[in-house]
Amino acid sequence: MGTRTISEATSDRASENVREPARFQRVAIIGLGVMGGSLARAMTATSTAPEEVRGWCPDAAERQAALDAGAVMAAPETLREALQDADLVVLATPLSTVCGLVSDIAADALAGDTTIMDVAGLKAPVARAARSAGLDGRFVGTHPMAGSEASGFAASRPNLFGGALVWVVAEPEAEARTERVEALWRSLGAHPVRASAAEHDRLMSLVSHLPQLTSNSLAAALDGADIGHGDLGPGGRDMTRLAASNADMWAPLFEEAHPDLVASLRTMAANFQSLADDLERGDVEGIVSLMKQTQSWRDR
Amino acid sequence: MGTRTISEATSDRASENVREPARFQRVAIIGLGVMGGSLARAMTATSTAPEEVRGWCPDAAERQAALDAGAVMAAPETLREALQDADLVVLATPLSTVCGLVSDIAADALAGDTTIMDVAGLKAPVARAARSAGLDGRFVGTHPMAGSEASGFAASRPNLFGGALVWVVAEPEAEARTERVEALWRSLGAHPVRASAAEHDRLMSLVSHLPQLTSNSLAAALDGADIGHGDLGPGGRDMTRLAASNADMWAPLFEEAHPDLVASLRTMAANFQSLADDLERGDVEGIVSLMKQTQSWRDR
Repeated sequence: MGTRTISEATSDRASENVREPARFQRVAIIGLGVMGGSLARAMTATSTAPEEVRGWCPDAAERQAALDAGAVMAAPETLREALQDADLVVLATPLSTVCGLVSDIAADALAGDTTIMDVAGLKAPVARAARSAGLDGRFVGTHPMAGSEASGFAASRPNLFGGALVWVVAEPEAEARTERVEALWRSLGAHPVRASAAEHDRLMSLVSHLPQLTSNSLAAALDGADIGHGDLGPGGRDMTRLAASNADMWAPLFEEAHPDLVASLRTMAANFQSLADDLERGDVEGIVSLMKQTQSWRDR
Repeated sequence: MGTRTISEATSDRASENVREPARFQRVAIIGLGVMGGSLARAMTATSTAPEEVRGWCPDAAERQAALDAGAVMAAPETLREALQDADLVVLATPLSTVCGLVSDIAADALAGDTTIMDVAGLKAPVARAARSAGLDGRFVGTHPMAGSEASGFAASRPNLFGGALVWVVAEPEAEARTERVEALWRSLGAHPVRASAAEHDRLMSLVSHLPQLTSNSLAAALDGADIGHGDLGPGGRDMTRLAASNADMWAPLFEEAHPDLVASLRTMAANFQSLADDLERGDVEGIVSLMKQTQSWRDR
């Protein structure tokens, strides 16, 4: 990866005893689901809470729920009102809508001195959208490694980001803003670590998207062989847990899939083909050597 | 599967209030690792312990350990002595040696009125070995769904089989012996369920062997892409837990692999190929429909 590890990133900060950059004071959180709702709850709960945390989402009932829970101090009816005078806009909507939002809010953001941050699971598509909206110097892409299988404001919680790794993509023109965003994440107990958008998206395609599709493929093969989930032991259950994930949440991530995901899916196809060939020939040595390789990978 | 479920099997027994068949009184356990050691410990610990539980394995130190732990009442130096007058011989060695043992002990077993039971993870190869040794009428194949990643007598424990499902393969000529073996498993807190050797082995190839090789394939693909185990989140870690399994323990199971394992490996290869093709074409609908299928499989 070439990025710093979490402990390096945090110990740097501790040993340098750097003065934290100025905090954001008027925060507009767009999207009040698990991510946006949890961010709102976390920000209003800290001792260093901004003067104002506003929230907006299209659903009035969700806005009211966020107000009632004290997660936001205001929940105006329109996106425009929510953005008004904000020094930080957090785009906390799914990847499928975040790119459109970036261009929708560009004019308002450029009028003031607004920093824009998103929390979507792929960073290159969002960075491209920010660039084409002329927001490069305002935009900070982040991706907290935290979430929930459930969705909506009801599934949000103030401590979702405590201890979480947060990937941060810094545009060269937005270094000072990036440092303020990193300080914000640290104030919520998270560990920001920098990566380029390309590095981040490649890593996600391998550590997150590939295991997801592997679980789906295995579940489909078992289903096709008339094996029920209840027939599995603990190993098989672990291997098919991700198969319960929400397809609609994943679809936009696959629409923007990194080329390495395609390559790794082809590697998997080749692995299975050669396992089948080995077994059919009665050549167990190839299988044993694969198992020994992965055993030592696990031990490293 | 066509077999009865665990709860059916146990409630039958309870409601019929059947008299348990005669218990075995002189038990010889061959192999004192996790399975044999745990069986010895469990049998000597029950209130209905046999008059004698003898143990044997080639390693004198392991025999001594079993004696010292009180798991066996005797641990003679030779296999022959261990078998002497036994009414039950338990073959608790890996699949690679159990078939050879069946023919090694055939003459002794046929001389007395000995029941032979094994605990190996595939049942058809062992049933074939028993048949060719002329032991069909004496042999009961079993496979307890319990075990450990660790090995040797030190990893054995008396409660390993408490609550465990135990597959039982009944030869038609050995019905009375099979019922005694089922009663033995029940006395150890396990739940015997019958299956044919072919049904059992097909089921194992899908619920156990396929998830195992899927975990290895995923780990190998990640390794090949320079992703370390520490780079994974909880989902990826679950998906690669089985990749740490012992290759030498698995090799004999793959040597006797069921044809359905080969078929399901080819299904997996095709699944990954078509996922890669879909992604490359930007056709996310195929992926979404796969995910929805597996989501509903999980919910069933």
